[in-house]
Amino acid sequence: MISEQYKAMLSGKSVIRELSEYATARGKEIGYENVFDYSLGNPSVAVPKAYNDALIDLIQHGDPMLVHGYSPSLGIPSVREVIAQSLNRRFGMDYKGEDIFMTSGAAGALAHAFRLVTAPGDEILTFAPFFPEYNPYVNLTGAKLRVVPASFADFQINFDAFEEMLTGNVHAVLINTPNNPSGIAYTAETLAKLADILLAKEREFGHEIWLISDEPYREIVFAGSSIPYVSRFYPRTLSCYSFSKSLSLPGDRIGYVAVNPASGVSKMLATMCGQISRGIGHNCPTALMQLAVARCCDLTADLSVYETNMNLLYDELTALGFDIVRPGGTFYMFPKAPEDDAVAFSKKAMKHDLILVPGDSFGAPGYFRIAYCVDTEKVERSLEAFRRFVRAEY
Amino acid sequence: MISEQYKAMLSGKSVIRELSEYATARGKEIGYENVFDYSLGNPSVAVPKAYNDALIDLIQHGDPMLVHGYSPSLGIPSVREVIAQSLNRRFGMDYKGEDIFMTSGAAGALAHAFRLVTAPGDEILTFAPFFPEYNPYVNLTGAKLRVVPASFADFQINFDAFEEMLTGNVHAVLINTPNNPSGIAYTAETLAKLADILLAKEREFGHEIWLISDEPYREIVFAGSSIPYVSRFYPRTLSCYSFSKSLSLPGDRIGYVAVNPASGVSKMLATMCGQISRGIGHNCPTALMQLAVARCCDLTADLSVYETNMNLLYDELTALGFDIVRPGGTFYMFPKAPEDDAVAFSKKAMKHDLILVPGDSFGAPGYFRIAYCVDTEKVERSLEAFRRFVRAEY
Repeated sequence: MISEQYKAMLSGKSVIRELSEYATARGKEIGYENVFDYSLGNPSVAVPKAYNDALIDLIQHGDPMLVHGYSPSLGIPSVREVIAQSLNRRFGMDYKGEDIFMTSGAAGALAHAFRLVTAPGDEILTFAPFFPEYNPYVNLTGAKLRVVPASFADFQINFDAFEEMLTGNVHAVLINTPNNPSGIAYTAETLAKLADILLAKEREFGHEIWLISDEPYREIVFAGSSIPYVSRFYPRTLSCYSFSKSLSLPGDRIGYVAVNPASGVSKMLATMCGQISRGIGHNCPTALMQLAVARCCDLTADLSVYETNMNLLYDELTALGFDIVRPGGTFYMFPKAPEDDAVAFSKKAMKHDLILVPGDSFGAPGYFRIAYCVDTEKVERSLEAFRRFVRAEY
Repeated sequence: MISEQYKAMLSGKSVIRELSEYATARGKEIGYENVFDYSLGNPSVAVPKAYNDALIDLIQHGDPMLVHGYSPSLGIPSVREVIAQSLNRRFGMDYKGEDIFMTSGAAGALAHAFRLVTAPGDEILTFAPFFPEYNPYVNLTGAKLRVVPASFADFQINFDAFEEMLTGNVHAVLINTPNNPSGIAYTAETLAKLADILLAKEREFGHEIWLISDEPYREIVFAGSSIPYVSRFYPRTLSCYSFSKSLSLPGDRIGYVAVNPASGVSKMLATMCGQISRGIGHNCPTALMQLAVARCCDLTADLSVYETNMNLLYDELTALGFDIVRPGGTFYMFPKAPEDDAVAFSKKAMKHDLILVPGDSFGAPGYFRIAYCVDTEKVERSLEAFRRFVRAEY
């Protein structure tokens, strides 16, 4: 019979998608260039030429059985090795190829990570504000996602609330730094304190607590910011990565899980991912994309536009009186709305052709997300719309 | 804590993989050209030039936001439409684009199909001989795979055994035609009788029974054979397809689920697949491969080598006294071993550098699989090895 569980999900509306659909419809009326669509986190910069060159070279000159043939279920060994070495060079880690499991983007990485270290009924804690897709990602595994309230002053961790919620039923903690939607990266101090608490609670509970680190924005870092490598702080870390943002290719579906070798079980866990794949129909990312990112894994696309956009928006909006924690990376910021009801705020903004996502679904009502992965020219034109909006409504 | 379920799976050994590893090791000793490795079902023919040309054209001239940007969660609309029209033209169906859900190969398609129409605890019936990966594919969803014994005379369906096992707890039936490992396609008569039984049992039980049709070998058809399109026989059919074999690109991970519109709920089910994806980390196949197969979905690679190989092996092995149901397609055949213990038989074959997979894991002890997706020149040389083997051992 048709699954009631998934059928019921059809009626759930995504606020972000509705806003995006409105923006598209409004664009047909007044020209899409006149709609300031800050709703979608879709990378807007070009793929590096080196990546497209790698694809074409592999197609034209690669061994066809390697390029189009089955990849081993854990990923192509040479690719896993190249990624391990790149991480070691850049972050002072000690990965081997056997600690890396290739996935179809970060969603695929997380799907494996949750199943690696939790069983149905276990709790996974995450921190507001958070990417709302974590709800289905976790809850459909049978584990339960619980959300620790935000530390609104700085979008670091609200440790008091965290320690209260960190009961013996919690088997994993999920973080996302730099963060969607706040743009904030956890400091070394935050990560060290988080690790201390986890280690203490592991001793208290007598079981492991794994840290699942979702880090697709790791390479989008703004001047003056530093983004510590999470896994250096805690041995039982599963780093879930996607090249979607760093190389600007979300459609290519390529990423990995890197298991910290300090855990002592990294090879086993990476190998277990291959067993998980059999149940969820994963069976490797495309061989071609594995081979191409291996040639480009120390590169990024030209990500400078995001910082340019952030500065323009941050300066204008703070001047207009908005309260914003200045982002350290990503292509998001998360200002406080000038009224408690951010949904009402977003609706008013739509009248000025500004498409802003209310923070409710991110676990932070009263705030709103701006996804500024758009052309700078459009950001500049939007500033006047923000001014008109604030003058008219507040 | 580390998942006990997946950890336990690590100790399970794949017979096919062990044989393949032996073949590789033996190849290092005596030269891989002298090992007659019939263990792996890895397509051996070249990708069509038109497909590689399509990839390169898309990379060089396609809209970068379409080629490297996020695909909608159900697949790129134009791609879904092209595939629907291709199926309609070739098989007299009436699909719309909205009935097609794009997946990462057949494994991804099956992962969605099982979750669409069963809940944990439900039974799914399949027929021996069967692809052994169906066990983890189904059982890790929480549903239970049960295997109907083979009809050994023709590898059609053992209907008596099927009707006995088709209880009210069965919510889906999984078929694979043309079949891995037998190479046999179900006849129109078999499919019509299967449909009649399912319709009668639906009425008796008062609930739907879905037919999940795994058909990656659909385009590998031998002269004199016909392979009826399964979905024409039964309205509640989910056709799970991969381009891996028809275009010879298993590493490209591209396929689809096509829901029969005669079910009356095809658009809803295809849309529900997008919800299932959120829980299993699927989130679309690569945009590039979607766009490329849309340009090639009426083509195949040059598949003629498989029939050439089949004829050579069938003629020689039947002359040597093997009992074989002549394949109608695929690149497999499934002869009866000359002794009851096919594992012992395969071990003896290894002494003659013939790598043959015993049928036990396919649900048919006493038989063995030959995967003849290898060069014809090698098949020809293997015939003498078969002769020596039979002379020496039987």
